[in-house]
Amino acid sequence: MFYHVKELQFNARVSKPDPKFARLLLEQFGGSNGELKAAMQYFVQAFSCKNPYPDKYDLLMDIATEEFSHLEIVGATIQMLLSGVNGELKNAAEESEIMQLLGGQAAKEGFIHEAMVNPHFGVLTGGGPALTDSNGIPWTAAYVTANGDLTVDLRSNIASESRAKIVYEYLMKFTDDPYVKDTLSFLMTREIAHYQMFEAALNTIQPNFPPGVLQGEPRYSNLYYNMSTGMDARGPWNDGTSTQLGETWQFIEDPLEHVMSSNGLVDLKPTGTDRTAAKVAKLDKSMSQIRSEEVKSATQEIDMQSSTYTKDGGIIEEPKKKK
Amino acid sequence: MFYHVKELQFNARVSKPDPKFARLLLEQFGGSNGELKAAMQYFVQAFSCKNPYPDKYDLLMDIATEEFSHLEIVGATIQMLLSGVNGELKNAAEESEIMQLLGGQAAKEGFIHEAMVNPHFGVLTGGGPALTDSNGIPWTAAYVTANGDLTVDLRSNIASESRAKIVYEYLMKFTDDPYVKDTLSFLMTREIAHYQMFEAALNTIQPNFPPGVLQGEPRYSNLYYNMSTGMDARGPWNDGTSTQLGETWQFIEDPLEHVMSSNGLVDLKPTGTDRTAAKVAKLDKSMSQIRSEEVKSATQEIDMQSSTYTKDGGIIEEPKKKK
Amino acid sequence: MFYHVKELQFNARVSKPDPKFARLLLEQFGGSNGELKAAMQYFVQAFSCKNPYPDKYDLLMDIATEEFSHLEIVGATIQMLLSGVNGELKNAAEESEIMQLLGGQAAKEGFIHEAMVNPHFGVLTGGGPALTDSNGIPWTAAYVTANGDLTVDLRSNIASESRAKIVYEYLMKFTDDPYVKDTLSFLMTREIAHYQMFEAALNTIQPNFPPGVLQGEPRYSNLYYNMSTGMDARGPWNDGTSTQLGETWQFIEDPLEHVMSSNGLVDLKPTGTDRTAAKVAKLDKSMSQIRSEEVKSATQEIDMQSSTYTKDGGIIEEPKKKK
Amino acid sequence: MFYHVKELQFNARVSKPDPKFARLLLEQFGGSNGELKAAMQYFVQAFSCKNPYPDKYDLLMDIATEEFSHLEIVGATIQMLLSGVNGELKNAAEESEIMQLLGGQAAKEGFIHEAMVNPHFGVLTGGGPALTDSNGIPWTAAYVTANGDLTVDLRSNIASESRAKIVYEYLMKFTDDPYVKDTLSFLMTREIAHYQMFEAALNTIQPNFPPGVLQGEPRYSNLYYNMSTGMDARGPWNDGTSTQLGETWQFIEDPLEHVMSSNGLVDLKPTGTDRTAAKVAKLDKSMSQIRSEEVKSATQEIDMQSSTYTKDGGIIEEPKKKK
Amino acid sequence: MFYHVKELQFNARVSKPDPKFARLLLEQFGGSNGELKAAMQYFVQAFSCKNPYPDKYDLLMDIATEEFSHLEIVGATIQMLLSGVNGELKNAAEESEIMQLLGGQAAKEGFIHEAMVNPHFGVLTGGGPALTDSNGIPWTAAYVTANGDLTVDLRSNIASESRAKIVYEYLMKFTDDPYVKDTLSFLMTREIAHYQMFEAALNTIQPNFPPGVLQGEPRYSNLYYNMSTGMDARGPWNDGTSTQLGETWQFIEDPLEHVMSSNGLVDLKPTGTDRTAAKVAKLDKSMSQIRSEEVKSATQEIDMQSSTYTKDGGIIEEPKKKK
Amino acid sequence: MFYHVKELQFNARVSKPDPKFARLLLEQFGGSNGELKAAMQYFVQAFSCKNPYPDKYDLLMDIATEEFSHLEIVGATIQMLLSGVNGELKNAAEESEIMQLLGGQAAKEGFIHEAMVNPHFGVLTGGGPALTDSNGIPWTAAYVTANGDLTVDLRSNIASESRAKIVYEYLMKFTDDPYVKDTLSFLMTREIAHYQMFEAALNTIQPNFPPGVLQGEPRYSNLYYNMSTGMDARGPWNDGTSTQLGETWQFIEDPLEHVMSSNGLVDLKPTGTDRTAAKVAKLDKSMSQIRSEEVKSATQEIDMQSSTYTKDGGIIEEPKKKK
Repeated sequence: MFYHVKELQFNARVSKPDPKFARLLLEQFGGSNGELKAAMQYFVQAFSCKNPYPDKYDLLMDIATEEFSHLEIVGATIQMLLSGVNGELKNAAEESEIMQLLGGQAAKEGFIHEAMVNPHFGVLTGGGPALTDSNGIPWTAAYVTANGDLTVDLRSNIASESRAKIVYEYLMKFTDDPYVKDTLSFLMTREIAHYQMFEAALNTIQPNFPPGVLQGEPRYSNLYYNMSTGMDARGPWNDGTSTQLGETWQFIEDPLEHVMSSNGLVDLKPTGTDRTAAKVAKLDKSMSQIRSEEVKSATQEIDMQSSTYTKDGGIIEEPKKKK
Repeated sequence: MFYHVKELQFNARVSKPDPKFARLLLEQFGGSNGELKAAMQYFVQAFSCKNPYPDKYDLLMDIATEEFSHLEIVGATIQMLLSGVNGELKNAAEESEIMQLLGGQAAKEGFIHEAMVNPHFGVLTGGGPALTDSNGIPWTAAYVTANGDLTVDLRSNIASESRAKIVYEYLMKFTDDPYVKDTLSFLMTREIAHYQMFEAALNTIQPNFPPGVLQGEPRYSNLYYNMSTGMDARGPWNDGTSTQLGETWQFIEDPLEHVMSSNGLVDLKPTGTDRTAAKVAKLDKSMSQIRSEEVKSATQEIDMQSSTYTKDGGIIEEPKKKK
Repeated sequence: MFYHVKELQFNARVSKPDPKFARLLLEQFGGSNGELKAAMQYFVQAFSCKNPYPDKYDLLMDIATEEFSHLEIVGATIQMLLSGVNGELKNAAEESEIMQLLGGQAAKEGFIHEAMVNPHFGVLTGGGPALTDSNGIPWTAAYVTANGDLTVDLRSNIASESRAKIVYEYLMKFTDDPYVKDTLSFLMTREIAHYQMFEAALNTIQPNFPPGVLQGEPRYSNLYYNMSTGMDARGPWNDGTSTQLGETWQFIEDPLEHVMSSNGLVDLKPTGTDRTAAKVAKLDKSMSQIRSEEVKSATQEIDMQSSTYTKDGGIIEEPKKKK
Repeated sequence: MFYHVKELQFNARVSKPDPKFARLLLEQFGGSNGELKAAMQYFVQAFSCKNPYPDKYDLLMDIATEEFSHLEIVGATIQMLLSGVNGELKNAAEESEIMQLLGGQAAKEGFIHEAMVNPHFGVLTGGGPALTDSNGIPWTAAYVTANGDLTVDLRSNIASESRAKIVYEYLMKFTDDPYVKDTLSFLMTREIAHYQMFEAALNTIQPNFPPGVLQGEPRYSNLYYNMSTGMDARGPWNDGTSTQLGETWQFIEDPLEHVMSSNGLVDLKPTGTDRTAAKVAKLDKSMSQIRSEEVKSATQEIDMQSSTYTKDGGIIEEPKKKK
Repeated sequence: MFYHVKELQFNARVSKPDPKFARLLLEQFGGSNGELKAAMQYFVQAFSCKNPYPDKYDLLMDIATEEFSHLEIVGATIQMLLSGVNGELKNAAEESEIMQLLGGQAAKEGFIHEAMVNPHFGVLTGGGPALTDSNGIPWTAAYVTANGDLTVDLRSNIASESRAKIVYEYLMKFTDDPYVKDTLSFLMTREIAHYQMFEAALNTIQPNFPPGVLQGEPRYSNLYYNMSTGMDARGPWNDGTSTQLGETWQFIEDPLEHVMSSNGLVDLKPTGTDRTAAKVAKLDKSMSQIRSEEVKSATQEIDMQSSTYTKDGGIIEEPKKKK
Repeated sequence: MFYHVKELQFNARVSKPDPKFARLLLEQFGGSNGELKAAMQYFVQAFSCKNPYPDKYDLLMDIATEEFSHLEIVGATIQMLLSGVNGELKNAAEESEIMQLLGGQAAKEGFIHEAMVNPHFGVLTGGGPALTDSNGIPWTAAYVTANGDLTVDLRSNIASESRAKIVYEYLMKFTDDPYVKDTLSFLMTREIAHYQMFEAALNTIQPNFPPGVLQGEPRYSNLYYNMSTGMDARGPWNDGTSTQLGETWQFIEDPLEHVMSSNGLVDLKPTGTDRTAAKVAKLDKSMSQIRSEEVKSATQEIDMQSSTYTKDGGIIEEPKKKK
């Protein structure tokens, strides 16, 4: 259950209206790396670990709830940056006086120009925030990734926090309102904090590589295909040993020859690794058992209940038992 | 600022897994009339009335926060309905034993068939909810309407609650799990409650018709165009007086003749109304003044602050004053 | 079947080209509350009431057809506002002369700037309207709501007309072309007229609350949850009796305590209402019978035909009879 | 202006309900090649040729209006195929009796299964059509192409009619209802008729190749790059003369060598063509003049009017003259 | 398998940065008629003709691969046009010095203004291309059409090339950088070349009209419905004989009368054609046999393999044989 | 420039058609974590590092090109899994014989049922792959993240590879075709290899935390807000020192009290860290200089060229020099 208190988590202030920056800031309200994306991503991920991993559930809900609170900060800042637009629009009948006040046609043009910054502010939202990015693209759940595996989801979150951080960094180049900068700085810093929280949580799960349960095929896990020719570079990503499995990178200079000579790779033998098909199969089996058991042991299959309320009471009919 | 407590607002329970119904229930999780849509709609609308209409702001945030809490209930129910899927997927290596247990090829087919109910459960979310509707369409902010005018927004909300209500009503036809029915009944009833709250709030704003500020043109406001011919029907929508303005409906039997004879309507004279261009202009002007003043008087234009914290402190540089 | 006559329903005129306003006006061509949305919404809703409610079918098709005619007016106006762009683009080879005529680089910049107003006009549509909103977002059927229940659909339509009205009101602030204002005024006024038509139609359906068939649970229908704390407000939406059911609002000051003490609400007893579970069940049953009968009695299940043509003739094979 | 008559353009009939085929048929209601796409495409294209090419405007509006009428036929057929669903959903309270009637749990499963065919029919539209494709994807204006040039738009239409035709052909494999087949056959045949209309219209515009105004660069217009190696094929598309310009195809066996030896193509000389830069420039210039003049001569730049109504009358203020 | 060489197919150059034109050019990077659309369309179409029509497969993959190479050219050009933006954004701390250099507040405004050209460049992509159109709309596969029938797909491609050509033509009006114009001219010309390749390929398939397999109904294939009245035009699209079937156009002056008098068309007799139901049925049958056989004879149904590698080797378990 | 060879990178084989698994496999063709997403993400990221970081450009293009090759493998596999569908659809006239062959109505139902697996296969793509996910949702560039900063982009890629890996892992549970499993195993393993390549590349950039240029505010970087109460958990993410900055986590038990007492956080003093505002400012400055210089020094601002061709030649007009 969620609660709301009317004070913001941060004392967001604005020196004066700035509809242009309001448009840019939409990127963190309804944009692909914005606060709603973060909040919804952690919120959705949390459901599948509530029972098997209650500590990670707590972590995800703590951060999800903070991101909702940040969404509110961003929205309130946009509203302040648009101060005056709504009142002006309500003055629906008074065109001629505006014209006089503003100095005629040129001023009118200017007024329109301001609104053009984001037409939605002028003709759709009436001078308030909208759940879109800085180009007016409606927020979509296509931004959210939740794959039901913590070794994957936590990595998705580390990357998401990185992207949210850089967008705040970019945004700071486009305002010189010190109040707004303070708010952006707070929000940017929190992404750095969350990054480290997710990283620490990932470290507590061992082994966490490869993500998920299954190991990779030893024949294919250390090949580097030189698919783009010209100005080829060598570095620790195709030379030496790989970061996690510690295998020796095999640099395939000529991928076509390699593929043709190995009958489409199916005749390849493992090289540069001491992992074998047998070892992999054994590891797959034991990891499957562990991970599957973690979930199954924590999950009921009949008469499930999500909260800790007493089980009985309140029901009108008797539940059907599982056959 | 938002808070979260781990108990649900309603004691959601499930008798046994039902992935098919989980798919249907997605309609209220990430669907066009679902809980996220409602929560985000009221949350976004709230920004523009925080200062001028703090009582409506309170109402919108009370209900928005409850809808977030309902989103959590729906998600938790979907998770329970999918119980077992995630554990099974984690058992990544053990295909052959499953085959034995389930009774061979046919059972495998059945297992696949269950998953087909919504492929995302099987191959994307790992057996958890996704922010999509029942067909897997990602949630989009295109569902959300917020137009910066309470006489419009509250009507949008009344309609939104009506749609959410009927979807819960439809959903109840597709489950016979008494626990799930109880939860659906609670959620459906809350839409009925919210409907009446928004209606009461709308009634406190007078006049509230037409929505917004401007009156309609008296020449065009009581015309009924018979654009679809054959089996024409008459009723209070084209016969007698109109519901709000009390004008006499003018039934235009032959729209083409009407339009051609009035020079594309521009030569039309008002009939069936005692509203006049002069009255309308006067009303437009006074309404503009009132509504515009309500907003402007409540909205600062420099050194704005969204919360009630003390104004000074914390800022590194001096804010630029508005010129 | 639809017909078209080449004269517009309204004598739409434009004083001079204005590509900036053309961009804004797209909001009512392919935008979320525009004419296409309205036309398609009523058109789609109409199918399910053709047989059971022919009078409402007539109403929906009359207005849907008028909205198509308005879509045409808006499109024609955008085309006129873009006058000159298409011809200029066709002059594909003559760059240098344009440069001379317009006065060199600065003019070129200006020309580009005009086009920037909406890049689509310049590089995609060749100077014509596009089915997008003012930010270029393609129209999506996600804007359309049709739920197969008139007490819901008519409320959706009342809200849709309200939103369309306010967008026209906003638009009028951004043009001072008197011809365009006249057209906008006509279109805005028609939304006011349609609003009252839908309201009158809803009033003829009794009872129409709650929307749909099922009543709400008496235990949950009059609770007001104070989910957002600080600056709490009281009003007819949480104090006194509810607008439709006439129950006494129960203001839940502390939702957490309320939920915990009632075992997640399932142990709650109804208060502030004389509705009971028994009465509700009875009403649900009778309403189900009435509404279901209305539809079933008007709907054939074999050898259906949508028009009033004679039944036989024209078919090559014999239809299979329903078993 | 549009009109509607309640009789369909074709006597659409259905032998018995078939929710599965109703789902498939959605492809032509709200799908990427469906009737709405066709109707909207021609309707939007029509605006830009109303003045300069009134004969093509007439053609486009004739077909657009017919496609709207076909959209209605498809929707009415879907509604008939879903006959019974809406009435059943209205019977909201009567679960137990349905269970008895249908024969218990198994029948219930069956009922749910039918609904699963498209969850939207069961839980969103209440048993009516939706503006989506067969997978429930909302219709989007991204399907519509209108580029403000008839030599392009007519080709787009020829292709659109081809796609619509094949989808009807595919659909016929999935029903054996002779009534439905008759309707599909009518609709499919109309696409064949429209195809030929657009082709005839394109032929009246001469020259119409290349589409648009500008000629292609003689150095690059007859090169065939063999970018995909292995099993290379030769045919009239890379051997002999090109279809429209009559140039000799230059087959570039080894694109990399060709590009490197020509300094990234910029040092290439034209071969296999008698077109020259000078001829192209001349043609570009004359075509620009012709096409640009066609549009400009037909388009006013002040006091524009879309219909043939008398110019004066009805306006409240004097229009601003163009400076 | 794809390869990449780091040299571009064309020596793309840019005289100086131009973020405004970079925005426009996005239309051909991630826009509806851009290079990605073309590449993906031909790539996806190619799968279904690899076995039955290897020559067309070769053609499609040759062009698809060239379009990928063009996508790279467009992206590289956008990157050059945005030169400086990324470096400036990296200079994240140095606001004050920028202010000095650029001359204070006005320059800052200018800098912001430049960025406003497309907010994504400033706050999302860090000064690089994005897979969107010129309005920031993300590329969507809704642009791609692939219908599994070459007589349809090749027509779709002819139209796609036409649209891509006109967009390049329009773009050339908005830059006067001779390097950029050269690149655009190359890319535009290639669309003209591809157009003729697809046309030649379509001509090798005979008969190719109607697209697909089935013939049209003789009763409906030559009717022209005058659905839009006023300023009616006659031309070879409704007068004389049709382009492909050579039937005589039947101009239906009054469609309503025509439909009503023919019992919703089902009582119509064929006129103006010597095609008959019997001939059509025979042709349908023979075409079905031919086209179906072409595909079936080229497609294995067990132990399929996509490449020409030797069949055995590499597999761990024995494949299950088809029953 | 891209090349294509017709042999696949892996010898993909299929035992027998399986349209159901074809639908599931679409998730890696046109789905949110599929091969197209990966290919396009690395391809788009590559543009901005071509000049400043040619080694990372090589890495990104090597992997992007391999992912395109994987996209081809997935598409070819889907095509084989759908073997027979296209041929059957081409047999457009022969319904009755199919009925006989398949055994009448039941078989027809079965055939339809198979198609229902994904309606697009039956009625849109003609039995080929489509650029959608397993629910038919068109691929969208909203899946792609490219933010113009390698420390961010490489982390996005590590997460993307993790998600792609788990989707392949899930997919393997839904097929028992050993050929298909082999292909899936190869593809899954390559994600593991790519993961380690990106990780190694990230490690060569030092410092790489925080991502981007700017450091976080010392006052806010180590706070952990306990926003979700009940069943609170402690772990290395809120207890002890943070993973990267080595600060001491400050667990904020009661966020509301914390925020209110610090005047909305602006009066907070740093604790648990030895980072100071001064140190941060200095670091921000030096990092800005380094990162900005890396880009600027590698990027020309006039007469830019993307390839290594000789600079002169081929241009028709003289380029305008930068002023």
